[in-house]
Amino acid sequence: MLAEVKGLNEECGIFGIWDHPNAAEITYYGLHSLQHRGQEGAGIVSTDGETLKGHRNLGLLADVFKHGELDDLKGKAAIGHVRYATAGQKNLGNVQPFLFHFHSSSLALAHNGNLVNAKTLRRELEEEGAIFQTSSDTEVLAHLIKRSHTGDFVEDLKVALNKVKGGFAYMLLTEDTMYAALDPNGFRPLSIGRIGDSYVVASETCAFETVGAEFVRDVEPGELIIINNDGLRIEKFTENVKHSICSMEYIYFARPDSNIAGINVHSARKRSGKRLAKEAFVDADVVTGVPDSSISAAIGYAEESGLPYELGLIKNRYVARTFIQPSQELREQGVRMKLSAVRGVVEGKRVVMIDDSIVRGTTSKRIVQLLREAGAAEVHVRIASPPLAFPCFYGIDIQTRNELIASNYSVDEICRIIGADSLEYLSEEGLVDSIGRPYPNEPYGGLCMAYFNGDYPTPLYDYEAEYLASLEAEK
Amino acid sequence: MLAEVKGLNEECGIFGIWDHPNAAEITYYGLHSLQHRGQEGAGIVSTDGETLKGHRNLGLLADVFKHGELDDLKGKAAIGHVRYATAGQKNLGNVQPFLFHFHSSSLALAHNGNLVNAKTLRRELEEEGAIFQTSSDTEVLAHLIKRSHTGDFVEDLKVALNKVKGGFAYMLLTEDTMYAALDPNGFRPLSIGRIGDSYVVASETCAFETVGAEFVRDVEPGELIIINNDGLRIEKFTENVKHSICSMEYIYFARPDSNIAGINVHSARKRSGKRLAKEAFVDADVVTGVPDSSISAAIGYAEESGLPYELGLIKNRYVARTFIQPSQELREQGVRMKLSAVRGVVEGKRVVMIDDSIVRGTTSKRIVQLLREAGAAEVHVRIASPPLAFPCFYGIDIQTRNELIASNYSVDEICRIIGADSLEYLSEEGLVDSIGRPYPNEPYGGLCMAYFNGDYPTPLYDYEAEYLASLEAEK
Amino acid sequence: MLAEVKGLNEECGIFGIWDHPNAAEITYYGLHSLQHRGQEGAGIVSTDGETLKGHRNLGLLADVFKHGELDDLKGKAAIGHVRYATAGQKNLGNVQPFLFHFHSSSLALAHNGNLVNAKTLRRELEEEGAIFQTSSDTEVLAHLIKRSHTGDFVEDLKVALNKVKGGFAYMLLTEDTMYAALDPNGFRPLSIGRIGDSYVVASETCAFETVGAEFVRDVEPGELIIINNDGLRIEKFTENVKHSICSMEYIYFARPDSNIAGINVHSARKRSGKRLAKEAFVDADVVTGVPDSSISAAIGYAEESGLPYELGLIKNRYVARTFIQPSQELREQGVRMKLSAVRGVVEGKRVVMIDDSIVRGTTSKRIVQLLREAGAAEVHVRIASPPLAFPCFYGIDIQTRNELIASNYSVDEICRIIGADSLEYLSEEGLVDSIGRPYPNEPYGGLCMAYFNGDYPTPLYDYEAEYLASLEAEK
Amino acid sequence: MLAEVKGLNEECGIFGIWDHPNAAEITYYGLHSLQHRGQEGAGIVSTDGETLKGHRNLGLLADVFKHGELDDLKGKAAIGHVRYATAGQKNLGNVQPFLFHFHSSSLALAHNGNLVNAKTLRRELEEEGAIFQTSSDTEVLAHLIKRSHTGDFVEDLKVALNKVKGGFAYMLLTEDTMYAALDPNGFRPLSIGRIGDSYVVASETCAFETVGAEFVRDVEPGELIIINNDGLRIEKFTENVKHSICSMEYIYFARPDSNIAGINVHSARKRSGKRLAKEAFVDADVVTGVPDSSISAAIGYAEESGLPYELGLIKNRYVARTFIQPSQELREQGVRMKLSAVRGVVEGKRVVMIDDSIVRGTTSKRIVQLLREAGAAEVHVRIASPPLAFPCFYGIDIQTRNELIASNYSVDEICRIIGADSLEYLSEEGLVDSIGRPYPNEPYGGLCMAYFNGDYPTPLYDYEAEYLASLEAEK
Repeated sequence: MLAEVKGLNEECGIFGIWDHPNAAEITYYGLHSLQHRGQEGAGIVSTDGETLKGHRNLGLLADVFKHGELDDLKGKAAIGHVRYATAGQKNLGNVQPFLFHFHSSSLALAHNGNLVNAKTLRRELEEEGAIFQTSSDTEVLAHLIKRSHTGDFVEDLKVALNKVKGGFAYMLLTEDTMYAALDPNGFRPLSIGRIGDSYVVASETCAFETVGAEFVRDVEPGELIIINNDGLRIEKFTENVKHSICSMEYIYFARPDSNIAGINVHSARKRSGKRLAKEAFVDADVVTGVPDSSISAAIGYAEESGLPYELGLIKNRYVARTFIQPSQELREQGVRMKLSAVRGVVEGKRVVMIDDSIVRGTTSKRIVQLLREAGAAEVHVRIASPPLAFPCFYGIDIQTRNELIASNYSVDEICRIIGADSLEYLSEEGLVDSIGRPYPNEPYGGLCMAYFNGDYPTPLYDYEAEYLASLEAEK
Repeated sequence: MLAEVKGLNEECGIFGIWDHPNAAEITYYGLHSLQHRGQEGAGIVSTDGETLKGHRNLGLLADVFKHGELDDLKGKAAIGHVRYATAGQKNLGNVQPFLFHFHSSSLALAHNGNLVNAKTLRRELEEEGAIFQTSSDTEVLAHLIKRSHTGDFVEDLKVALNKVKGGFAYMLLTEDTMYAALDPNGFRPLSIGRIGDSYVVASETCAFETVGAEFVRDVEPGELIIINNDGLRIEKFTENVKHSICSMEYIYFARPDSNIAGINVHSARKRSGKRLAKEAFVDADVVTGVPDSSISAAIGYAEESGLPYELGLIKNRYVARTFIQPSQELREQGVRMKLSAVRGVVEGKRVVMIDDSIVRGTTSKRIVQLLREAGAAEVHVRIASPPLAFPCFYGIDIQTRNELIASNYSVDEICRIIGADSLEYLSEEGLVDSIGRPYPNEPYGGLCMAYFNGDYPTPLYDYEAEYLASLEAEK
Repeated sequence: MLAEVKGLNEECGIFGIWDHPNAAEITYYGLHSLQHRGQEGAGIVSTDGETLKGHRNLGLLADVFKHGELDDLKGKAAIGHVRYATAGQKNLGNVQPFLFHFHSSSLALAHNGNLVNAKTLRRELEEEGAIFQTSSDTEVLAHLIKRSHTGDFVEDLKVALNKVKGGFAYMLLTEDTMYAALDPNGFRPLSIGRIGDSYVVASETCAFETVGAEFVRDVEPGELIIINNDGLRIEKFTENVKHSICSMEYIYFARPDSNIAGINVHSARKRSGKRLAKEAFVDADVVTGVPDSSISAAIGYAEESGLPYELGLIKNRYVARTFIQPSQELREQGVRMKLSAVRGVVEGKRVVMIDDSIVRGTTSKRIVQLLREAGAAEVHVRIASPPLAFPCFYGIDIQTRNELIASNYSVDEICRIIGADSLEYLSEEGLVDSIGRPYPNEPYGGLCMAYFNGDYPTPLYDYEAEYLASLEAEK
Repeated sequence: MLAEVKGLNEECGIFGIWDHPNAAEITYYGLHSLQHRGQEGAGIVSTDGETLKGHRNLGLLADVFKHGELDDLKGKAAIGHVRYATAGQKNLGNVQPFLFHFHSSSLALAHNGNLVNAKTLRRELEEEGAIFQTSSDTEVLAHLIKRSHTGDFVEDLKVALNKVKGGFAYMLLTEDTMYAALDPNGFRPLSIGRIGDSYVVASETCAFETVGAEFVRDVEPGELIIINNDGLRIEKFTENVKHSICSMEYIYFARPDSNIAGINVHSARKRSGKRLAKEAFVDADVVTGVPDSSISAAIGYAEESGLPYELGLIKNRYVARTFIQPSQELREQGVRMKLSAVRGVVEGKRVVMIDDSIVRGTTSKRIVQLLREAGAAEVHVRIASPPLAFPCFYGIDIQTRNELIASNYSVDEICRIIGADSLEYLSEEGLVDSIGRPYPNEPYGGLCMAYFNGDYPTPLYDYEAEYLASLEAEK
């Protein structure tokens, strides 16, 4: 489904490179391939070994750097960040990487994920006199590093990494070293690649193809990667690790050309579509997917079911830059800019519409309506993942159950609400099998399935009370 | 294939609406859905019945109207235009609609297509004292209207329409009437729709879905459509007509959700892929299409051949706005922004890569290389149209044979040049059958196939001498 | 007085240079020094001997060329234009230089002034089939040139120059020649300078100081200047000439560092202030001028009267770029951005406020009020020119008598309306003497004094009827 | 002299208003009148009583708020800041007001001035774990407040204000109170005004005229002003105070319409010019001043000497927005954009050129050259202040002696370097007398004269060692 439409937002993409004459430029291209992970803001910090320089602003990467700002970011190493888009809140202060000036050195910090104990840590730090300049969780790590007094930056960093809980893939840059760290559950993807002798780190492997890097290995849960003139060193900041890779990365967020834990995202989605065809076949004339993220699943469904796959829904590829939106009045007249149903394909046909997930249900309802207005005789909705019924606290922007239609209504009720002729979801086991159990001996094969079953792999800290109360309230 | 990559450019999209309180706004949304037909510039002219007001500028539609310029375009009728992108030449003067101020009235004019006798007409007009302010052919029509002295605008317009030769879909707007006219061969698509009592005219029917209009009928070759407060009137400016619908609209230009002559574009493409699988099957592991325009054909090829369809090539959907491009040095290191091969899908596989056409061959070569670098064991290229060997003089931006690889090399040679393991094209008959012969009793079922066989449906006038010389030179 | 405040607008500044490796760049700097003559739009056309290339847009020069557009304007010759600001009407089409494409050549045209027979010429040309693309008078000349068929461009141009009537300083550029022409009355200033072997032409001599050129001579009424690789040639397109130099150039429009007809503008203004002190002395504590244009006269008044000159009114020098204006409510609370009275200077004082002219009276009223609010005990207004009672048809944007307070009210009435303690104007003879009668044997010493006495130096053609009717109506 | 030319930069202007329905808008207009104090960046923070919201960016105020950003700044109170321009360094992070988020509240902070012990405080704070996100001194105050644990914000603030040393005018805003504080020497100007019941605070009184406020009183050294719903309360954070008002505010920085310590800036400058005429008369033909800041002194010089005052130098008032600068090559050809000498005024004349000060001498040299190129027979430079020989540590951007020509060369040598026929400076006593000894019983009548004589009114802390070493090195 369209990121612009769905209202389900990833929290960011990160990229870094050490020891390349065009470090900031390479970072730009790397971030460009990660733009789907965040469109609200972008930034890059580079170092020439002496100082850190950065530029960041609200907007798409291309706009942030359109007036030659890259030229100022000299040096052989750089890290960058693209930030997710939340409606309305335009806060330049939260655009990363953050740049902290210490007495004798500087630190740039970029973060993908969400901490579950940030509020508590922040309160403690503020009570000790810390001042926060942003409303972002990310700042907490810098204060924790600063307050650890082992006398050694790597040790300070490890101490800090053990205090933050939740989902985090961090990149840090000082004048002489680049660091990457992944939380003990490995919620968010993070991989290491190489261009000649230059190491790169990126949220997704698609960035490696873009910058001409070859894949080296994934960062593992609890690892701290240290890259400097001595080369690459891998340390562990904790031994207490397991894999809980965000299954929504496979289902919706990641680019289909990325591999996560060695599994290609497109292939996982296609398998989920095939499995869905087995679990929830319906006789129909055409199969169509909601672009972009559900295309792979729809292809799989068609292939397995033997029904023809068609482009029944078309996305306007120029929509990302539109500043003007139809007024309510015009929307009611049927004016729409993002998605069109293809009358020539669906008119008079029984349509299987494959989507990757249903969040609030409003978009699904709108798409079913689009198809019907274009003449579809029947619309059967098939979702290539289980009902999304539980919030995520590790880096996806859904934090209360009452936003989620599946936590409030049964599948039958949802079917009626969205106006479909039938609605079926993929089973939990079907999803796990389709993705492929990257770590077969770990729960759910190493995946986090909490959105579907509430089985959170960590304590929820700051969110615990409110979350339990919300469950209680529903009874 | 990607418009940004291919260097094969449509010449524009047009849209108009009569009698709607939000005429300029509706025109904006209509043009938005036609943006794929031109990204160099955009403009809208509206009328409130007393005066014509317009705004146009270089850039994407969204950028041209991003500072509230729509608010100034009051009135109940409007026409608009999006213009194609040519590398380098940024000429605001050529952005349409043009607005001509006559003594007692004004005229806005927008044009999709290319005239073959513009140079001659222009010379004649200049000799009579006319001054041209643009280098665009479009201006010619205004001068011709002005110089016809029948005393009746419609008659003057008909006289002028009979003087211009080639491919043209025109929209005109005066204070009290909107006009649309299509050349006697109907090279370019143009359709009429309706929102309640308001008539709309658009280059493609996809615009109707976007603005909530229902399809009424196509404009036929030689027709002049007159829309004003008396309603819609259809006249003919010539009886000497036949259908020569541009086959490249089906193959490459039009949006898959548009219908041309009642034939859905996606469906035509999918049929061409199926036919291609019959004509040029190759045993392989995966079928992949070059996004966006070749996806439908690739789906068809996969469906017919029984080979699995996969996303082996991914387009970066944020590429349209990128101002910064990798330096030559970085490109050689493999930095690329637009298209990625999906290693997880193609590694070790025999790949059938479906493309809609090959123009210069440089892009095909690059994509084959991308697939090989991502580990493809074999790359078999299949083209869902015949070799593109002849220039177009009716509205597509290829006007000399030596730009076209297929007019200089045999299929075997092209195969070697692009580095494919095998290369095959769809036959002419295969293409015509796949599109579906909308006018079965006319040559090629009503299609223009000149790019493939040099059988131009009109005299070439200004281009004749040079074209014949180029054929001669090749001998 | 402030151009931004006054609502009295010059119609443009022009600049050109032939045979300089940085022609477009020099033109940019030349126009920059002429920016006070027009802030609505700016443009430059250059030639490399083969083609003409141009860029123009709405806005200040610096904004129009802020994204490197100058780099595209290669070549050894260029002409440029800055256009006046009229409230509200933002019409890109009217921004000059205009660029006309003829069959075998091109023509760029820039104009400072106003024609009095443009309407008639336009109607005639349109009846012969000409199409106008702008609402600007300037286009008329191009059509006239085109329709003269002497077979020689210079002759065609001379024929055309004899058909247009009114005020005009034209610059023209073709691939091989630059032209400048001045109307037979020499209403608008136009001078020739030289940088080494490169000739420059500019509306004001201040541009010569800016670009490092030395003054050569003024262009004389009825002259056509032809500059090309053969050097500079001066021809006359008519012998029927006299000098009617716009006196408002001296009084208000021109920059104080410019010389017109050999007379320095600042010095002329200072003399007018001195004369005013003689003609209209008033005992007071301080003399102050309304910035910027009345400063010189105020200095003169102070020097002659022996009263101290003070900065009693301060202009905010950042006002030119302000997009936000105080709401009516805030204006009533006294919020103002452009001009401040200096309390520390005027409090408790009898103030002589010198202004160059009064147009509508609204601004004068506001400034008197500012001074009173800042504590001035008395405000005596002295105007360094006679009452402005007649419209201008030769290039200044006041074309009806009823806009002018002095054509509707007596001096005493105006004094009451603007709330001054006393008001006196410079006499006509005083003004002519102060400027200095550059051509002592011609009427008014070679000046146009029509704004003050209605003695228009040419027939009024298109304006005649309406103007006479307006005089009649007042009776 | 021109701020853009001179390279002598004020460090900022501040403005705040409490209890006005258009607080942010009023702040915008207030800052607009303070734009001369800083052109690098601007920002405003407002509060609606519940939260603080802010917007800030690099660029002129008008550009920072040109896209409707003011509309988001709701609420009844606001503070704002304009920041000085340093060449090259474009650092968004340093643009103020800073906005700090504490656990249960927020704090906005804006600062005009420079601390002399910031480095030490910063090091101490960092050792205690504080993290600084900017390289600005301003941040120190927030950390100091945070680390004082009296349990009462006002007390914490007073403790912090006693720790910072040097020059500071602070404005602070929380959800329920606005604060202003001035250092114990009162280096920087800060005044209180009133619009009806709404209090305003501004760096200069010119802002009061702009926003329609009446002057209430100056903030005195060591005062903390507290404005909230209980009204205005004045407290002292220290009793150890004296007046050391920056004399450069009178000489160069402040707007002529501002009053500082009850003394009008224009009047002080004019008196300095008169005194200069007494101390350093030279027979000549014309007196001219370097715009804008030296105009008043030049008027005074002319008035006292009896020589005529003329506009011999003209500033281009559109220069503030120019992005393109002449290349070195063109500058050598004499292309200049900012300042022009008026040939018609100076040619063949003996010119007295009045300037307020000489910093590096490069600009003076250029202006003398301009006058000579325009034909001046003699150029006598008279400076309306004593030689500027010592750096400032309290808020002006000159911190080393070797930047200052007067600390390295004698007056005779400077005269030769700048190419003048003669050069004289105003005496120290002359300056103090001219300004007028606002506090006659304090040293230098309450002025800081350290730039002229090295008599710094406070210890120099962090700067002491380096400064003493620089003095030593000169021996």
